[in-house]
Amino acid sequence: MSIAPPVEQTGAAVRRGPGRPRVEDLDDQILAGALGLIDEGESVTVRQLVHRSGVSRAAIYRRWPSMTTLVAAALDVGRTVPPDLPLDGDLREAVMGALIGGQSISVVGYSEERFRQRIRLAMADRELQKAYWASHVSRRRGPLERAIAAGIERGILRPELDPATCFDLLAGVVYYQLVVRGEEMSDPAVWQRCQDAFDIAWRGMLAEAD
Amino acid sequence: MSIAPPVEQTGAAVRRGPGRPRVEDLDDQILAGALGLIDEGESVTVRQLVHRSGVSRAAIYRRWPSMTTLVAAALDVGRTVPPDLPLDGDLREAVMGALIGGQSISVVGYSEERFRQRIRLAMADRELQKAYWASHVSRRRGPLERAIAAGIERGILRPELDPATCFDLLAGVVYYQLVVRGEEMSDPAVWQRCQDAFDIAWRGMLAEAD
Repeated sequence: MSIAPPVEQTGAAVRRGPGRPRVEDLDDQILAGALGLIDEGESVTVRQLVHRSGVSRAAIYRRWPSMTTLVAAALDVGRTVPPDLPLDGDLREAVMGALIGGQSISVVGYSEERFRQRIRLAMADRELQKAYWASHVSRRRGPLERAIAAGIERGILRPELDPATCFDLLAGVVYYQLVVRGEEMSDPAVWQRCQDAFDIAWRGMLAEAD
Repeated sequence: MSIAPPVEQTGAAVRRGPGRPRVEDLDDQILAGALGLIDEGESVTVRQLVHRSGVSRAAIYRRWPSMTTLVAAALDVGRTVPPDLPLDGDLREAVMGALIGGQSISVVGYSEERFRQRIRLAMADRELQKAYWASHVSRRRGPLERAIAAGIERGILRPELDPATCFDLLAGVVYYQLVVRGEEMSDPAVWQRCQDAFDIAWRGMLAEAD
């Protein structure tokens, strides 16, 4: 599945140019419609989506054979796979920056409200959760996992490490703040706690303790 | 808020002895009713709860001034604050056992379905999330945080560590499996991944790398 280009954040404003819409526009219209429903806490049904997006039922099903994959794609609107990390500088800084940002936990193109909706929908529907994992989350992990693998190559990190397990450990503490503690991403104390936990994990990953 | 004693897991079977019910029985009836609604994916409203539990609206409000605190209490039915960990043996084993169990991720008195419902409700309602955190989750962290503090005391773990931050790091990776990856608690591979991540974190916590 390809990741859709960014579209409007609300379903209300749907672009309509003159003449027959281009195929990408239809994709955008459908996803924007789905996102509007999600943001309002409504269920995403084909009927609602036809009403909201102005796109026909047949056109919707031609693009997304199930509502599950459509909702997974809509939840990812505005998010992209981040670029690969620079591997020649300070690896620790690069990984931390990619993971929690510079001053507060920030995820480009992703509001806190959208994050909470995504988790809510995922916990209500494991099929959606797995689809979203496979098509979106697991792909976004790539650059950071490759950076960790490069650190192992370069002898900075321990050779027996599994990059995916390291990622889970580093990202887990961030999710814990938002999903369990109910903290806000913008809270500097939360960012600091993540950074402190990150330092512990990084120390455990280093080939030699410093 | 006190933690209620374990009651039946479904709201359908409500105990009714002869004569006036004891106060604790009323608590149980109300909580069992709320839990039945939660397990069925229904909203917990006073009206529904009166119907389900057979307890009067006034009696419900006397015990729980808000539905938020009532739902938080219901989500915790069957769960208790775990006992303090033995601090004289192998600390690493004790902490790991308390965190992820012996062979698969197991949380006593807590089904996977209940876990998913809890996260779903928390993400839909930050007030509930904060209430549940304050009254239940944060209290259950106590024994493990005290064990980490004891490890610092004994010079096993680094003196500058904050036990709460360590807890977040260790527990975060477990939540990541269930909330992001959508794994099942019973999967041995998931338990192994948590253990591997735990080993990395523990190494980062040790006063001296081994």
